[in-house]
Amino acid sequence: MQSVSSDLDIARAASLKPIREIAREAGIHADWLEDYGRYKAKVNLDALHALADRPNGRYVVVTAVTPTPLGEGKTVATIGLSQALGAHLGQRAFACVRQPSMGPTFGIKGGAAGGGYSQAVPMEDFNLHLTGDIHAVTAANNLLAAAIDARMMHEHNYGERFTEITGQPHLDIDPDTITWNRVLDVNDRALRDIEISRDHETRRATRFDITVASEVMAVLALATDLADMRQRLGRIVVAQDRAGQAVTAEDLKVAGAMTVLLKDAIKPNLMQTLENTPVLVHAGPFGNIAHGNSSIIADRIALKLADYVITEAGFAADLGFEKFCHIKCRYSGLTPDAAVVVTTVRALKMHGGGPPVKPGRSLDPAYTRENLQLVDAGCANLAHHIGIVRRMGIPAVVAINRFTEDTDAEVQLVRERALAAGAHDAVEATHHAQGGAGAVTLGRAVMDACEQPNRFDFLYPLEMPIADKIRTIARRVYGASDISFSDKARQQLDRFEVLGFGDLPICMAKTHLSISHDPALKNVPADFVLPVRELRASVGAGFIYPLCGEMMTMPGLPSKPAFTNIDIDDQGQVIGLH
Amino acid sequence: MQSVSSDLDIARAASLKPIREIAREAGIHADWLEDYGRYKAKVNLDALHALADRPNGRYVVVTAVTPTPLGEGKTVATIGLSQALGAHLGQRAFACVRQPSMGPTFGIKGGAAGGGYSQAVPMEDFNLHLTGDIHAVTAANNLLAAAIDARMMHEHNYGERFTEITGQPHLDIDPDTITWNRVLDVNDRALRDIEISRDHETRRATRFDITVASEVMAVLALATDLADMRQRLGRIVVAQDRAGQAVTAEDLKVAGAMTVLLKDAIKPNLMQTLENTPVLVHAGPFGNIAHGNSSIIADRIALKLADYVITEAGFAADLGFEKFCHIKCRYSGLTPDAAVVVTTVRALKMHGGGPPVKPGRSLDPAYTRENLQLVDAGCANLAHHIGIVRRMGIPAVVAINRFTEDTDAEVQLVRERALAAGAHDAVEATHHAQGGAGAVTLGRAVMDACEQPNRFDFLYPLEMPIADKIRTIARRVYGASDISFSDKARQQLDRFEVLGFGDLPICMAKTHLSISHDPALKNVPADFVLPVRELRASVGAGFIYPLCGEMMTMPGLPSKPAFTNIDIDDQGQVIGLH
Repeated sequence: MQSVSSDLDIARAASLKPIREIAREAGIHADWLEDYGRYKAKVNLDALHALADRPNGRYVVVTAVTPTPLGEGKTVATIGLSQALGAHLGQRAFACVRQPSMGPTFGIKGGAAGGGYSQAVPMEDFNLHLTGDIHAVTAANNLLAAAIDARMMHEHNYGERFTEITGQPHLDIDPDTITWNRVLDVNDRALRDIEISRDHETRRATRFDITVASEVMAVLALATDLADMRQRLGRIVVAQDRAGQAVTAEDLKVAGAMTVLLKDAIKPNLMQTLENTPVLVHAGPFGNIAHGNSSIIADRIALKLADYVITEAGFAADLGFEKFCHIKCRYSGLTPDAAVVVTTVRALKMHGGGPPVKPGRSLDPAYTRENLQLVDAGCANLAHHIGIVRRMGIPAVVAINRFTEDTDAEVQLVRERALAAGAHDAVEATHHAQGGAGAVTLGRAVMDACEQPNRFDFLYPLEMPIADKIRTIARRVYGASDISFSDKARQQLDRFEVLGFGDLPICMAKTHLSISHDPALKNVPADFVLPVRELRASVGAGFIYPLCGEMMTMPGLPSKPAFTNIDIDDQGQVIGLH
Repeated sequence: MQSVSSDLDIARAASLKPIREIAREAGIHADWLEDYGRYKAKVNLDALHALADRPNGRYVVVTAVTPTPLGEGKTVATIGLSQALGAHLGQRAFACVRQPSMGPTFGIKGGAAGGGYSQAVPMEDFNLHLTGDIHAVTAANNLLAAAIDARMMHEHNYGERFTEITGQPHLDIDPDTITWNRVLDVNDRALRDIEISRDHETRRATRFDITVASEVMAVLALATDLADMRQRLGRIVVAQDRAGQAVTAEDLKVAGAMTVLLKDAIKPNLMQTLENTPVLVHAGPFGNIAHGNSSIIADRIALKLADYVITEAGFAADLGFEKFCHIKCRYSGLTPDAAVVVTTVRALKMHGGGPPVKPGRSLDPAYTRENLQLVDAGCANLAHHIGIVRRMGIPAVVAINRFTEDTDAEVQLVRERALAAGAHDAVEATHHAQGGAGAVTLGRAVMDACEQPNRFDFLYPLEMPIADKIRTIARRVYGASDISFSDKARQQLDRFEVLGFGDLPICMAKTHLSISHDPALKNVPADFVLPVRELRASVGAGFIYPLCGEMMTMPGLPSKPAFTNIDIDDQGQVIGLH
């Protein structure tokens, strides 16, 4: 990002208000609030019931162009825009964002609280345990995993007499069908391929994923209330029995205990921006094998209290935004009023043919000097994402996240191309360096977009066969010519229809670095067939996820990890987190 | 325990005060308090500094006879006694207890918040995540584990060029010497014996322990402040290099990040008893491979605020109390004024020759009908534990935790035998059924004991050779005739002296079901030689732990786990937790 002071320094210099004051100003009744220290609080679900009759505010989703590996500032834009609306334009505005995984914080990535002068604070809390929700997901996920292996072991040990002795049915889980992995919120590559129960006949190969990849996290994000979460957890399918029938968390009688473990995690976390506007931080499901959006419950509460709710969807419009529409909105019943498409000149230059952008390497001069040709060519990627938003029936506002090295001519060119592609508006934004003041123009454009006609509609009905739903997304969202299935995927597809999972929405699992399935294909790939390697079902969360390529669900630590710089100083303050 | 209403029902019917009110009444300044909802708060370490000049209150440690597998009510006594002192006898009294592991709550054990009318509340919070401290320990432990395997993998991949490329020294960890395990707070037997990194040349066998068995938990419990915790984490030894030198968390440059992960966990958690007296809940290290005592920091804060601090030590006097004296008091510099030895008629009958007591089975009539002969014989066990307390130089008060089926004659007999064995007093207590009112006599006896002459002293100096320290504990605390070392243990002993660990105190790892190393030997085993199978070092926490027998560090789930009864009801309330 631009060269401003370090995010941690800015965050620490900020003048925070007590969270009770933020809550009061935002219309959150003190009775709904559960403090976690002075600057964090959970909002309990009494708020939902008490506010049920209020009309909803405007619902704005933030998405982006296909990013470089550095990211293009979508969280910063979400925070910055909410600061502009709430602190500069006289609106009641909430930002709703995902809780970041702690693993990458100690690996390579650093924090994810926004950045510069558009951050959610205190940033240490945001990037570390917050109020423990991810830990609760870990606990619930792993209790279910332990239940599976313990049940197999006891059924094996007691044999035919298992039911007689324990009064429970023989589940007869087929170990080769187990899809439930254990999870930890740490980058631990050594856990990608492990063998467990090596001291018992039920020994088997399995793996750990990072916690945010757990289906439990997706359930938390998609649940509409506590009872709905309880039902979804019970529906989680962990394996098949030897007769090919689905085995669920309910069958293992563990869904109730999992709900108890998540009874506080279901309450959204209230924090504040650097400009003292409210932020709800809640849930952080993976953006590829899950839907990559923050929670329905947080959005629902915020919509009752705010004029504008700015919610972020993971990755670009082909992924997070499409899933926001077809999965999150499907389950919430909510309809977005507008989408913000964040872009950078840098990303468009990369799509236009610029050299590879790699984390930790200095940028090629193509990115630091004016190059209108690269920008012009790369605007096709922006146009494609605007098209996705338009196809869903809502207005798109392009936010050009401006860096100091970008020239006026480059920004102007992006603006023209965006408008030509059907954007309602396209404006430059400097909220990273200037906070909400840098996003006032963006805020006005978003307010205007929300007054435009809204023809939001889904691209596919749930009753459509699974293959056709996948084909619809591949063609109409990605621009693929067709889709292909491996033999395995085709068998799974048939099996899922038999098991009754056919009516679920689709959650595409593909790379975020290309609109296609191939991360090397930049800009707007054409004439490609999307290959579906495998199909999996998150029946509890409520979606089928086709795997198009290898999905990395457990990151590793680099040779010089970020944790080597993280410590406390003599005053007990955190250093090295950024 | 006695037949009263369920613990959860009693806890829920209790009239709780807001935690800020409990804090105010206990003399905890509002500035030191970090709320976690309405009924929990963390007390930050500003309290320690602000109160440094105040004199300490009386320090009472609660221990017990060798228990049956059902436990004899030590936590209940700790809570009940603090209720008696604080709510009935006009004293400022704090209870300081360990945070229980969540794993067993869902396995077989149920909750551990005390019981009946002597509980720490809200009991759901106490038994579940509380404020996330155990999760923070999990995260810190596993970040270190990931750092070890990632470092080995990168050193393997880069080979000779590792230092040149990354600027870090080649640690050259010998994989066969790694003693650092991963941890989870779940009963997951399948993780006792696993193989990791199966997709890499650094594949190796390892295991998960339950989180409370982590050395990080012991560090949390023994740290005297944040800087001391930072130092201890850095000193943790995880392996040896191929030259036989110790490899530490500091060598891996991860101790700073671990400290950051634990920066909130180091703050004790304030809760309340059913009678609105203050409880500090903090840390819960394993009682066998670690020292099994709550935190030094919680005790230090409480002693500045209270007339009486009642702190619990794990297991019986041969284990938790001995370690309280030789490890916790050694590092804290604090001195206990008296010890309470909790006993039941049931436990003494078992020691006197009664049939085995097993969880989940109904008790033999020997335990439900008067049997003075069994009680009389079993009082030798009580006398032995009184003797341990006396040998440490402080007065012992015996609390006879009375059950409805115990007869007056049985209780009277226990009382006489206790006094004959040198107890300062011995009284019956009915705090389970009656709350603090049932422990008023106990409270008066404890107050009187605290006024007696105190000759507290350690049984061994740190400079004594490791083998002699172990022999001293075996002979003077357990009554063993001698100790023996396996060849492996003898080699490790020599190695530890060379590595400079020789001056650490000893933390015996043995069964809690016998004073000896053999759980089958009840009452007072005689003429036994204590076999030391293996030696390990928790250099960060600060002790050597000799293993005398197999220690179970990862429990399993039974064939019908407790979690099958745990759920939420229609009002969203937890059911089935007890």
